[in-house]
Amino acid sequence: MARNKHPEETVHLILTVAFRLFMEKGYEHTSIQDIIDHLGRLSKGAIYHHFKSKEDILVAVIDRMTAESNQMLVKIRDCSGLSGKEKLKRIFKESINRPVQNDIFTVAPDFHNNPKLLCSLLYDTMEEAAPNYILPIIEQGIADGSIKTDYPEQMAELILLVANVWMNPMIFSSSAEESYRKFMVFGQMMQGFGLDIVDGEMLERLQELASIYQKSKQ
Amino acid sequence: MARNKHPEETVHLILTVAFRLFMEKGYEHTSIQDIIDHLGRLSKGAIYHHFKSKEDILVAVIDRMTAESNQMLVKIRDCSGLSGKEKLKRIFKESINRPVQNDIFTVAPDFHNNPKLLCSLLYDTMEEAAPNYILPIIEQGIADGSIKTDYPEQMAELILLVANVWMNPMIFSSSAEESYRKFMVFGQMMQGFGLDIVDGEMLERLQELASIYQKSKQ
Repeated sequence: MARNKHPEETVHLILTVAFRLFMEKGYEHTSIQDIIDHLGRLSKGAIYHHFKSKEDILVAVIDRMTAESNQMLVKIRDCSGLSGKEKLKRIFKESINRPVQNDIFTVAPDFHNNPKLLCSLLYDTMEEAAPNYILPIIEQGIADGSIKTDYPEQMAELILLVANVWMNPMIFSSSAEESYRKFMVFGQMMQGFGLDIVDGEMLERLQELASIYQKSKQ
Repeated sequence: MARNKHPEETVHLILTVAFRLFMEKGYEHTSIQDIIDHLGRLSKGAIYHHFKSKEDILVAVIDRMTAESNQMLVKIRDCSGLSGKEKLKRIFKESINRPVQNDIFTVAPDFHNNPKLLCSLLYDTMEEAAPNYILPIIEQGIADGSIKTDYPEQMAELILLVANVWMNPMIFSSSAEESYRKFMVFGQMMQGFGLDIVDGEMLERLQELASIYQKSKQ
């Protein structure tokens, strides 16, 4: 096989195929050979050029899964001109504006068969994302007076557990209506933290989500 | 080997040994033979008399792990003379009165190495325990006027996700102080749901937990 001139495309292809197979067959039941069989022209050597092992591919698949969400979090965490509370509100807003269904979800992923993927995602969220992205925002909010809490670490963990795990339709499959209902309960939870972050515009978007669901039922 | 006259003791022994090995080595890296090697006098036949496979043992281990918590939930769900809100309060109370550390935790379990166990526990909580134990309590509360929500299913899920997963020191290891902080944040979340369930007695217990931690640090 000719050397691929665009290694990033090769990596992208490997991860896309691997993700689909992990979802369909489960990580444990997918072999490197399965991935190769679905890669068309690509040789075993080409895979091993980029990834040392199947575990290595898994880590990259998870990184790609969380990358979009993490980029959004970093952007909001580091932007200037917003209070801590406004940043949390922005995170909530961006979350409900993401499309409820996208290509990834049409794979009908089933984390029930992917304990390894789920476990990595869960601990990543709680041990990496919460302290690195949400905690600094809450600490800023405490400093600027917009957030009041004696338990910033725990609040960061809980907010992200709810937003990234519970409200993640890849982990707990949700119809548009269920997503809407989860957002409403999330909003109530935030209110319990003294964070009134649901505004009229968000409610409108939430109602739009609910009506999409109603139509799809007809 | 002589037939065991007390099969329930045999099962108990198998599950205790299996649980310890799953925790120490990880489910994937524990073989039936490993379990036998740690069972002393027990033969392979004795194991297969009770369990068809390693997967079967895993299911029983998880059932035993969740049994204590589920028994408590059933008892509260089915008791008479309490409103829905009072039942949720009772659950919160029983949770903080459970010892923070017990024998199981001294194994220093690491769910990082037990994705399969963690995954089962998570989906059990969300798909079995929440609809079967918490949802009926919330529905009772809506009927008796003590709980106000338009989203009983989602509230049930979120309460149990927080109580059984996030506050479970087997999943996310927590010092006594961290447990105390998590309980406080849980209480604030409940307040967001209009459920003012933390009373003076509970606060006292929470402060006791915090002081246990302070002493252990000295």
